[in-house]
Amino acid sequence: MFSPVKNKKIYEYVIEQIQKMILEGTLKEGDRLPAERELTDLLGVSRTSVREAIRALEVIGLVESRQGEGNFISSNVSNTLLEPLSVKFMLSKGNTQEILELRRLLELETASLAAKKATEKDIEELQVLINKLRTTDDENLCAKIDKEFHYKISEIAANSLIMNILLSVQYLMEASIIDAREMILKNPEQKDLLIKQHEDIYDSIKSHNPEEAQNAMREHLAFVNKTPKNS
Amino acid sequence: MFSPVKNKKIYEYVIEQIQKMILEGTLKEGDRLPAERELTDLLGVSRTSVREAIRALEVIGLVESRQGEGNFISSNVSNTLLEPLSVKFMLSKGNTQEILELRRLLELETASLAAKKATEKDIEELQVLINKLRTTDDENLCAKIDKEFHYKISEIAANSLIMNILLSVQYLMEASIIDAREMILKNPEQKDLLIKQHEDIYDSIKSHNPEEAQNAMREHLAFVNKTPKNS
Repeated sequence: MFSPVKNKKIYEYVIEQIQKMILEGTLKEGDRLPAERELTDLLGVSRTSVREAIRALEVIGLVESRQGEGNFISSNVSNTLLEPLSVKFMLSKGNTQEILELRRLLELETASLAAKKATEKDIEELQVLINKLRTTDDENLCAKIDKEFHYKISEIAANSLIMNILLSVQYLMEASIIDAREMILKNPEQKDLLIKQHEDIYDSIKSHNPEEAQNAMREHLAFVNKTPKNS
Repeated sequence: MFSPVKNKKIYEYVIEQIQKMILEGTLKEGDRLPAERELTDLLGVSRTSVREAIRALEVIGLVESRQGEGNFISSNVSNTLLEPLSVKFMLSKGNTQEILELRRLLELETASLAAKKATEKDIEELQVLINKLRTTDDENLCAKIDKEFHYKISEIAANSLIMNILLSVQYLMEASIIDAREMILKNPEQKDLLIKQHEDIYDSIKSHNPEEAQNAMREHLAFVNKTPKNS
């Protein structure tokens, strides 16, 4: 449980303690945090430090502050303002190759999981996206649908950990897709090939064939990978 | 660039603006943020909101506040206090199966990347861990070495995005390894098999064979997966 502060930045300590209680299962979704005054006493820190910590947890989407009621462990934790992974990538000057490696890692497995888990409704939704990809001319819209298709597959994979990773890296995924499409479509004849690759992924998910889904995704990403990069 | 506030929580807006500038490349690692007073004017918000936003970014490890010098975009972004992924997983009551799916997703690919990229020094370090695994009797220590072995492979894979994901999920990885080992070693004869599996992974990385490395990792995780779970 709580133990009083020694060195280190004080609000950091408060956050660590709260994180620890969540990881150990003492604090659960929807639970009310002890009142600020109580936390102040329990941890032996100032009220300001407690407030700073709680506000920070609010920003990360872990805590919800309700006017007059107090602070609660958030019940919708995937709803986050920040994309830490995208931001960190930009700051550490990561290269495009890293994004493609990450896409391979995430998407070969989500394709395979999606083929195992897809319901009739999931398949219909993928079908709608494929139809849109086939009939849409506006490239900005196409890139959006393309991204939606890939995220829909991750959603079908039905793994909250994997979905959270994808949500924390949306900006990079979108940039990667827009970029790849732009380069590929410099040769307009390749548009049919690109649609065909998405159809192959769709078909193998529809027929619940995990190996084929993974192969179709692998082929698609290999094609994207061998296209010269924009930057 | 900056544009003044409408609705929404004000500190959230400030954070969004700063994130946007990072993603667009306007703010870079080590850059000094505009002074609090300046941000107040630029964004048309109160000084308190600016401070709250900056403190929150500090907590997430994106901003470093230096006494008397101001606020800077952090130069060591992988150094983060929080494990958002572990925390979100615990809060959403995820199941063990999801962790094993995530491990498959992360580790099949990192094993393969590691086999491609491993240097002589990397291989030596893995060798040291294998030797320790073979000669250590204390199970608590073994579990630690086991985890180190898996994280060393991700490090060798040399992809900052993937490494950041692994860092944000350390608590779950450790728990998964401790748990799996405990169940596997209920039959003490399986200890040799477990060591053998790690040796196979090591051997294939040493011989720079990505397919074999992936297969060895797949076999290891399949073995872990078929062991009855603790909870």
